[in-house]
Amino acid sequence: MNQKKLFEQIKKKRSFLSIGLDVDLKKIPPHLLSESDPIFSFCKKIIDSTNKYAIAYKPNIAFFESYGAMGWKSLEKVSDYLSSKYPEIFSIADAKRGDIGNTAYQYARAFFENLSFDSITVNPYMGRDSVEPFLSFKDKSTILLTLTSNYGADDFQFFGSPKNPLFERVIEVSKSWNNSNRLMYVIGANQINQLKKIRGLLPDSFFLIPGVGAQGGDLIKVILNGINDKCGLIINSSRQIIYADSGLKFQKYAKDQAIKIQEEMEKQLLTQGII
Amino acid sequence: MNQKKLFEQIKKKRSFLSIGLDVDLKKIPPHLLSESDPIFSFCKKIIDSTNKYAIAYKPNIAFFESYGAMGWKSLEKVSDYLSSKYPEIFSIADAKRGDIGNTAYQYARAFFENLSFDSITVNPYMGRDSVEPFLSFKDKSTILLTLTSNYGADDFQFFGSPKNPLFERVIEVSKSWNNSNRLMYVIGANQINQLKKIRGLLPDSFFLIPGVGAQGGDLIKVILNGINDKCGLIINSSRQIIYADSGLKFQKYAKDQAIKIQEEMEKQLLTQGII
Repeated sequence: MNQKKLFEQIKKKRSFLSIGLDVDLKKIPPHLLSESDPIFSFCKKIIDSTNKYAIAYKPNIAFFESYGAMGWKSLEKVSDYLSSKYPEIFSIADAKRGDIGNTAYQYARAFFENLSFDSITVNPYMGRDSVEPFLSFKDKSTILLTLTSNYGADDFQFFGSPKNPLFERVIEVSKSWNNSNRLMYVIGANQINQLKKIRGLLPDSFFLIPGVGAQGGDLIKVILNGINDKCGLIINSSRQIIYADSGLKFQKYAKDQAIKIQEEMEKQLLTQGII
Repeated sequence: MNQKKLFEQIKKKRSFLSIGLDVDLKKIPPHLLSESDPIFSFCKKIIDSTNKYAIAYKPNIAFFESYGAMGWKSLEKVSDYLSSKYPEIFSIADAKRGDIGNTAYQYARAFFENLSFDSITVNPYMGRDSVEPFLSFKDKSTILLTLTSNYGADDFQFFGSPKNPLFERVIEVSKSWNNSNRLMYVIGANQINQLKKIRGLLPDSFFLIPGVGAQGGDLIKVILNGINDKCGLIINSSRQIIYADSGLKFQKYAKDQAIKIQEEMEKQLLTQGII
């Protein structure tokens, strides 16, 4: 899916909510554990109950990988389910991959061809030839880690000078890469002080914003500082939605949480004149 | 396996060669394609024919992932085979992972517990809390991307000033992390101009050096600039060994290539008085 279709979906659903699928068998409703594939079953039920309010789902690949080949099989089923039943949904492989040339191309094949994700998160540390293989895929987006929400972000992402920190260098250099129009950028929800400046550097790009909810970012502040005339934001919430409840009615509670966020997003889209 | 045992193996085998397992079904000997698991079969035969001359094997995870759940299953078999049949071998998951806290811990579980790798390559961009979860595992090593061999390395790894580039900042900061004695560092074989300086900053650490052979690094120059009194080097070669030939006798050709490198390494270990 290209970014134009993503914007159409945002207008239609009046939402720019991404739901993170961080599936931990110790946290999902216990009654699902007797099913043949509890990981897929949980994801399917979350997707079925929340897809009217969300424009994207973001499986966190580490959680699937930690269950080995079985987890990878579940990931294939989640990817297939999303692309066949909900083709309008923007799917994000939160994989944070990064390797050189031919190896990067293998990762791109793994997530864009073998699995059918619309986008993947990628680490910029190794530079141009670690990202361009992802960018060569038409109608796919590559989401570059830029300024993250964790406290370790301070270790290197601000390295350089306050006027010229590493994360700004990442932004500047990335614009020169082939097919850079297929880039999006990960900006942590708690990086409010930087968000307006980053929007200035990237007026037209989509930002994937994790860290709203359980990680403590403030939804409205993020919107006011980061939104552009095509929305330009995909705001992710994971645990607050998917683990809202672990009883028999967990889907209803997940849905309620998704609606709560979607309604706030709708308000802001109206205020900003985007819908 | 801890780093002390790794050094014992280096002295015993008179080698510090790692063999990279970048398994591409288009490149392996065609007669293996009729086997039930050609990926595992190829790795097994390469390992069986070269393990007297190599101290480490480095599966490149992207290549396995590009075959989906089937590839992951093959990876499990390679990992099991190495740890059960050749427990003295140091196994490296070349995965270049990097994510925050709990997610990083899931990746560590995937490679250190579910699979039984002795080490994993990790990306430093997200800082302390993206690496420490790996470092918390006893007798496991975490190999930090520092200065890589690809041309994109210039984009960000030298960012800052010539006196204080990002990769040196990565080295300095990493020393303050919990269990930093479990760190190793990836330094590209072609970064000869920086290698001596980096050895000065990290006198006691092991460096994983990819890029010898097909990528063009010069073996002897690397050794002379990077070796320490406990060797401190793991030099990787992939394609030059595993794809030396694609006929029925490919194992013999792979073995010959491994011996050629091992003999040069033995000479240097003797010259340096390490064995």
